[in-house]
Amino acid sequence: VAELRAVVFDVFGTLVDWRSSVIDEAAAAGERAGRTADWAAVVDDWRRAYPPALERARREPVWRDLDALQRETLDDVLTRHGVDLPPDEREVLVRAWRRLRPWPDTAPGLERLRTGPATATLSNGHVALLVDLLRFGGWRVDTVLSAELAQSYKPDPRVYRRAAQLLGCAPEEVGMGAAHAGDLVAAAEVGLRPLFVRRPDEWGTGAAEEPPDLPGLVVADDVADLAAQLGC
Amino acid sequence: VAELRAVVFDVFGTLVDWRSSVIDEAAAAGERAGRTADWAAVVDDWRRAYPPALERARREPVWRDLDALQRETLDDVLTRHGVDLPPDEREVLVRAWRRLRPWPDTAPGLERLRTGPATATLSNGHVALLVDLLRFGGWRVDTVLSAELAQSYKPDPRVYRRAAQLLGCAPEEVGMGAAHAGDLVAAAEVGLRPLFVRRPDEWGTGAAEEPPDLPGLVVADDVADLAAQLGC
Repeated sequence: VAELRAVVFDVFGTLVDWRSSVIDEAAAAGERAGRTADWAAVVDDWRRAYPPALERARREPVWRDLDALQRETLDDVLTRHGVDLPPDEREVLVRAWRRLRPWPDTAPGLERLRTGPATATLSNGHVALLVDLLRFGGWRVDTVLSAELAQSYKPDPRVYRRAAQLLGCAPEEVGMGAAHAGDLVAAAEVGLRPLFVRRPDEWGTGAAEEPPDLPGLVVADDVADLAAQLGC
Repeated sequence: VAELRAVVFDVFGTLVDWRSSVIDEAAAAGERAGRTADWAAVVDDWRRAYPPALERARREPVWRDLDALQRETLDDVLTRHGVDLPPDEREVLVRAWRRLRPWPDTAPGLERLRTGPATATLSNGHVALLVDLLRFGGWRVDTVLSAELAQSYKPDPRVYRRAAQLLGCAPEEVGMGAAHAGDLVAAAEVGLRPLFVRRPDEWGTGAAEEPPDLPGLVVADDVADLAAQLGC
């Protein structure tokens, strides 16, 4: 593997376990509000509404942050599931995306990795959300980068280019770490090195996504394994 | 003191000792190149050329980073001092601003402070420079923010407003920590809470700047003292 000066990471699913965290919060919100539902199904559908919502948001003239988008998609999903949750509990769930548990290897893996290349997030979550999320989970990168800084959303190529530019790197000097093939395909198109991290538990199924077929792809079992493969 | 949700910090002089660090690097560069000079005077004049260079840069149509500006001002200063340093050693000195030693209280003070409000840099140094600087000095904030993210330079009010916005805060919820009155006056005009940190050794004189006369001003002897005064 040619030496990388920086590695940026997708966050939801790659570094943090959004699913079990949000299901727990949804069940607790339902309990408080006296509502029952198949919360796992609600949360999975909420997450499935996320890529198309980002795709629509990218075509809007004014950039809106993830909280705004998640408020809309949550309302839709709750309606579809016939669940009537009060507004304050909906807001608790929108804010739950700041309280996602990191995967067990995330904090130690990043500590090991950042002895080599600089590390950063590169998430569709906005900076304020990511700052809260890192503080909540107690893990560390050298800086927080977000699609917000390109006023767009992944997989827009401008997001990856902006990250490399802010890190003072050519795209080829930056690795993109993600558990999602689409993210890596888009990053590789811009010139970033694709680093696939298997996350079989992201959807609670035990089956990780298939790694994309990309030249120079690194496939790792977790962040610590990635650090080892990158010589850290 | 009303509770702050975030504190952003000036870096050069406030968190790191640029002067002794750059003088050491300049003396070493001179040694390698076989040039003698009053390196302390060169470095002090270089630093004095910094505010007017930023002021000029703010009026330029295309934003340029600190490396570009420091290259120009270093050439001017060396000419004025009659010092002929080869290009590669000049570049070493431009890059020396990524290798500035933190003040002794910086790392532990920030660790203590960030148990309360979120912490960030808010420097005229660009993101890539700051990432290197934090990695070099081994100190930590929750994220790196820079005037670069507003495509301007302090004391432009847009820099402070952009920082508050990226942190998801109203200006009143953000403290600005700096050893320089001008920075705090500009931040306070936008609504940030001014937090003055005395740095009597910034210019090697033993005399800190006078704190500005601002409502709600907090005056601290160092970052650890600031953390204590903010209840952390």
